[in-house]
Amino acid sequence: MKRIAILGSTGSIGTSALSVVDAHADRLAVVGLAAGENADRLAEQIARYRPKTVSMASGAAIDRLRHTGPVDAAIGGSGRDGLIAVATAPEVDIVLCASSGTEALEAVLAAIDAKKTIALANKEVLVMAGGIVMDAARRHGVVILPVDSEHNAIHQCLHGRDTFEIKRLILTASGGPFRGRSSSELAGVTAEEALQHPTWRMGRKITVDSATLMNKGLEVIEAHWLFGVRADQIDVVVHPQSVVHSMVEFVDGSVIAQLGVTDMRLPIQYAFSYPERWSAPLPSLDLVRAGRLDFQLPDADAFPCLRLAYRALDAERSLPVVLNAANEVAVAWFLDGRIGFPAIAHVIEQTMAAHRPVEVTTLSSVRDVDSWAREHAREAARAVELKV
Amino acid sequence: MKRIAILGSTGSIGTSALSVVDAHADRLAVVGLAAGENADRLAEQIARYRPKTVSMASGAAIDRLRHTGPVDAAIGGSGRDGLIAVATAPEVDIVLCASSGTEALEAVLAAIDAKKTIALANKEVLVMAGGIVMDAARRHGVVILPVDSEHNAIHQCLHGRDTFEIKRLILTASGGPFRGRSSSELAGVTAEEALQHPTWRMGRKITVDSATLMNKGLEVIEAHWLFGVRADQIDVVVHPQSVVHSMVEFVDGSVIAQLGVTDMRLPIQYAFSYPERWSAPLPSLDLVRAGRLDFQLPDADAFPCLRLAYRALDAERSLPVVLNAANEVAVAWFLDGRIGFPAIAHVIEQTMAAHRPVEVTTLSSVRDVDSWAREHAREAARAVELKV
Repeated sequence: MKRIAILGSTGSIGTSALSVVDAHADRLAVVGLAAGENADRLAEQIARYRPKTVSMASGAAIDRLRHTGPVDAAIGGSGRDGLIAVATAPEVDIVLCASSGTEALEAVLAAIDAKKTIALANKEVLVMAGGIVMDAARRHGVVILPVDSEHNAIHQCLHGRDTFEIKRLILTASGGPFRGRSSSELAGVTAEEALQHPTWRMGRKITVDSATLMNKGLEVIEAHWLFGVRADQIDVVVHPQSVVHSMVEFVDGSVIAQLGVTDMRLPIQYAFSYPERWSAPLPSLDLVRAGRLDFQLPDADAFPCLRLAYRALDAERSLPVVLNAANEVAVAWFLDGRIGFPAIAHVIEQTMAAHRPVEVTTLSSVRDVDSWAREHAREAARAVELKV
Repeated sequence: MKRIAILGSTGSIGTSALSVVDAHADRLAVVGLAAGENADRLAEQIARYRPKTVSMASGAAIDRLRHTGPVDAAIGGSGRDGLIAVATAPEVDIVLCASSGTEALEAVLAAIDAKKTIALANKEVLVMAGGIVMDAARRHGVVILPVDSEHNAIHQCLHGRDTFEIKRLILTASGGPFRGRSSSELAGVTAEEALQHPTWRMGRKITVDSATLMNKGLEVIEAHWLFGVRADQIDVVVHPQSVVHSMVEFVDGSVIAQLGVTDMRLPIQYAFSYPERWSAPLPSLDLVRAGRLDFQLPDADAFPCLRLAYRALDAERSLPVVLNAANEVAVAWFLDGRIGFPAIAHVIEQTMAAHRPVEVTTLSSVRDVDSWAREHAREAARAVELKV
């Protein structure tokens, strides 16, 4: 029996993870749940999965949770402390980190210190602090299993092969809802249009990141840390059907690819079952029905965020933190209708240009850069704010 | 240093194998070469690679070899004895079995007895005697590495995973030169047309097998033996671009595929380097240039040979021997212009229908069935012989 703690249990990944638990109740037990603000959903999950420890994002949320009825679990606290309590409880074997944004970083580091296996669905953890996290994992002999479909695919393709056997990683990108549009055609697109992802159902922030291709940029940075390859060993190819989830080319020229239906239960279960594979109640991939698979180069002019991510990874250590923070601010403003779609890249580029790169080897230095970048990104966003 | 013996050194696979040796002269040495009738080519290979032992198909061929000049290698004999001498010489680590047809079977069994690693490029060995060969390999703890691009792909996709984790194997087929044609359109095609393979350069017999899809049928039988899966766990999908060389679907629904350029040096090198991977002087696969990959169901009506192979595998043990022998006879007659293209399947079906299945657990029983089937196939072919 593997005992699971889920950070972000009421979100899209969290609920998929619980349905994986449903399908393997003989092999998986939920021992911890950390949610954001959705107290009603967490109350239902507590009643159903009987975790030992739970937490929520804020004290107010916990008050709402208590208001739903008697809570049959220890409340580990709120915010960062709550996440850490759920992640490090002694009965936990695997921590699924699926809470969005940057607040999960400390919980992941605490879980690594406590020698928990990490199933990582949160990109920001590695984008902000890849060096710190991977160093800690090495030091504690902790396995980090990527849940992101692309990195999960690469993990499956590598299946234990050494880094020196990798020629390059090929991350596939659906291209998002705006694939094929020119930069001028993208000037006026709305948040609503950006939220119509062609192949994956996901949260709002990551769906916009897919539309700008920043999602793929963050994945390039994540892949660098997870698999120990250089930026010039990571290629991105647009693959509209999202059937091939990513590939590895080895030094002998052989390419291994992972394909599957677009259902997050697949990579989540892989992370839970690893190193085994368990049967899954999912339909088989039907390649004949899929008919054809296409592969194209990404349009670097229409989607400059991808280039910005490569630039951040190539440069000094703090630029990825800046890229990520500025992107979070810019996407939030875009979702609020306060800036246009092309302004997302513009805000990030302005913030990166204004930044003096520093080493980020401690959490506090990450936090300092993050705060600076958010502040600067807000200024840059205000300068291009739409007048409604 | 791995020491290689090549059975079939002057053929298409053999010469590709020697160019793999050229690229890795620091890791691979040629210690044995067995050729067919091409004495001049073998003489060149001896001068260049300095094997310890050589052999040829016939005494006459060896006379011609001696006629080319002094032979700076031990001559292990001719025919079957020569193959066995080259395959079992004490200095050999890996035997690449690339001689076509059925005569290699005893040499492979002798090499397994001598605990050599087998790199297997000859389909007939497993189609005729899969049970005998795999039993011997298990008993002696011998590794059999498939060199056929499809089975090599599956070996790469499995990378040590257990059989019980396999849901199904998906063998890709280019569809051959006649893909998309109806059975009536195939009535009048010539040997010359059948020899125009769209994606692979290969020998004449296997190229015709690609045109009838019997090649894929033989591969289904081979895959059954190599990977221990049932016939109903092996699917064939037509993939005209020959970029995906084959796939494995695991029990969790995840599909792992191997892709690459269509160059036999890739699977040959994999077999030689296994379990390592070595860099290869081959161009990278360019998926963007490939543009699109298509997947279709094979046309069972136009290409009945595939169905015949499944039927042979499903039935008693001797039917695959009959299938293979009748196919060899029918293809030879087709290449000679003596029977039409649809008559290939007809001759095989007639021979299978006339056969009383028996157990084939010894080489002599395999030989008996093989002889019977060839004789019967010749009769069946005579009955439909074209009058020119």
